[in-house]
Amino acid sequence: MSDPAPLRAPKGLAGVSVADSKVSKSGADGSLIYRGYPIHEITENASFEETAYLVLKGKLPTKTELESFSAGIKEQSRVEDKVFAVMRELGRQAHPVDVIRTAVSALGSIERRHTVEEQELSIESKMAVLAANCRRVPLGEQPRHPAAGEGFAANLLSMLTPKEATDFERWIFERVLILYMEHDMNASTFTVRVVASTLADPYAAAAAGLASLKGPLHGGANEAAMEMLLEVGDPAKAGEFVESMLNSKRKVTGFGHRVYKEFDPRAKLCKGYLKEVLRRRGEDDRIYRLCDAIEKEMWERKRLPSNLDYYAAPIFHLLGIEVPLYTPIFAASRVFGWMAHYNEQLEENKLIRPDATYVGPSGLKYVPIAAR
Amino acid sequence: MSDPAPLRAPKGLAGVSVADSKVSKSGADGSLIYRGYPIHEITENASFEETAYLVLKGKLPTKTELESFSAGIKEQSRVEDKVFAVMRELGRQAHPVDVIRTAVSALGSIERRHTVEEQELSIESKMAVLAANCRRVPLGEQPRHPAAGEGFAANLLSMLTPKEATDFERWIFERVLILYMEHDMNASTFTVRVVASTLADPYAAAAAGLASLKGPLHGGANEAAMEMLLEVGDPAKAGEFVESMLNSKRKVTGFGHRVYKEFDPRAKLCKGYLKEVLRRRGEDDRIYRLCDAIEKEMWERKRLPSNLDYYAAPIFHLLGIEVPLYTPIFAASRVFGWMAHYNEQLEENKLIRPDATYVGPSGLKYVPIAAR
Repeated sequence: MSDPAPLRAPKGLAGVSVADSKVSKSGADGSLIYRGYPIHEITENASFEETAYLVLKGKLPTKTELESFSAGIKEQSRVEDKVFAVMRELGRQAHPVDVIRTAVSALGSIERRHTVEEQELSIESKMAVLAANCRRVPLGEQPRHPAAGEGFAANLLSMLTPKEATDFERWIFERVLILYMEHDMNASTFTVRVVASTLADPYAAAAAGLASLKGPLHGGANEAAMEMLLEVGDPAKAGEFVESMLNSKRKVTGFGHRVYKEFDPRAKLCKGYLKEVLRRRGEDDRIYRLCDAIEKEMWERKRLPSNLDYYAAPIFHLLGIEVPLYTPIFAASRVFGWMAHYNEQLEENKLIRPDATYVGPSGLKYVPIAAR
Repeated sequence: MSDPAPLRAPKGLAGVSVADSKVSKSGADGSLIYRGYPIHEITENASFEETAYLVLKGKLPTKTELESFSAGIKEQSRVEDKVFAVMRELGRQAHPVDVIRTAVSALGSIERRHTVEEQELSIESKMAVLAANCRRVPLGEQPRHPAAGEGFAANLLSMLTPKEATDFERWIFERVLILYMEHDMNASTFTVRVVASTLADPYAAAAAGLASLKGPLHGGANEAAMEMLLEVGDPAKAGEFVESMLNSKRKVTGFGHRVYKEFDPRAKLCKGYLKEVLRRRGEDDRIYRLCDAIEKEMWERKRLPSNLDYYAAPIFHLLGIEVPLYTPIFAASRVFGWMAHYNEQLEENKLIRPDATYVGPSGLKYVPIAAR
């Protein structure tokens, strides 16, 4: 039997549909829908928990369903001491994303949850607590625990920073989390689906998703964007900065996307939030003007639009969150999308096992080592 | 701008070439080559370290290169106490594959290796030690360390079991490890490449590979095969067993493969090793006759050939290795293949970021919760 000639996919599987999905859809025209709802319908109206329920279950919850789901997240958000003990072993220099990946991996080994749904709820609930503690605990500080009375976003924010936020700022933070929750077949979600297709449990799949977030082509962009903004500092220097970056063929973080070619709707929303936070605070809007100036330069010179990470970063900064926590925050929200895809993959599963085109030699004969 | 119609890939990416590769090639006709060498050229002649060098670097080593590579593996195989401490936290009930995944993930956080090559060598060297200790350490037993004088395979075998093996049995164990080392674009290797494509480090990629081994469609098959063989026990019951499995539409572990349709060359080699071990020991060959009988039934009734896991399992069993360590052994060898693919992915990298076909609703309007 000879091998059938394999279909050759474009590099990076760009533009190749690997599954049917009902979870979300991003479009080149700057559209994004979650389970049928245009993103602005969600950000204008829904809470984080409501959106998470929608993304996971495919419909907006009734009041009873929402209360039960929110209560479940609260109940499951207590992280066992053994998991913090693992995080503590990783040491002071540990990278936050390595810490969360190891903690989720350990969680899958330590806890006993019998159904996939229970396992998923546990991971979803605890990821925010792990994100808030992934720097503190390896430094030997006491873990922060969620407060009993607050919602998911307010809770995460108060664990992340001691800085008191206004109601509006909490609302904005919740919007940014909603925008980070789900984005069809991105690299970490695809990783989760590949692992899910082996019928591995949700802990293994989430740990693999976190592994792919370690790579600078997927995670870390919001952190790099903030470092860049802090470095440039002055809006008047935007032109000079972009020119020097482009002249030296370096990429400007926060611009360009595999899907969005005109604009990233999430960036547009965040840009508005950033402006409004500054206006309400009555603060100098230098950071907004800086972002806007670099964005204009990038569009004029390269026709590259800003992406979500570029405008989420200064919002996190204004809220008083340390830069190394930005990618962990992304993970704390995206895990709900990962689990939605985990479930969808298993609905009609087939092992994701592609082929490769062999381009090496063949028929070689072993040569004894003395004769090499 | 409208979206280009995506190319739709067959489910599970079956038969879709996602990359050019020079590492290995399995063929439907029962062929397998590593870097141009037919598998029997390797198993008849090469040591584990020689094969690992070949798979990683693309050529057989000179004497100096091999000595240096082997010395590097020995040097790097010392696992830090902090990693064992993490494994100990996971508790008595921990699943071995979860333990190794968590340990590799922790390793990536704990140790400081500056180049990708140093990081890879560390992971490759330590994986065997983690495999040998993934049951002992969570049970609170002292870790076993590698012996100074022995080669990779003999070392791993003596860490895995106190049972003394003959030179021939050690040689056989080394052959089985060689056969597990590499197998083109299998599910864990593809997972490693997806994570590598984000430019994540080798620890993250290896942890993700281990995550996919947790799934019974990829890892665990050698363990399940052994449990099945022990359960059936009597060669005379093979027909009855296969019939009852097929009648109740259950899969018989150890049969069938995405690539091999006539025979798996690795199973064929292992079948010969199994026979020869039993002949040299002068033991009752009941296990061989049992394997052979089930194999014949499966071929006659379903035209499904046995695969590597099916014949590796009884060899591990005869060598005195506990069943839950079989998949960790697979990982200890396959990690060399993973790292070869990690390197190949990065040579001409593009982020692996496919697309999905959205089949859900669109244009939905948010309905207030009281009206749902």
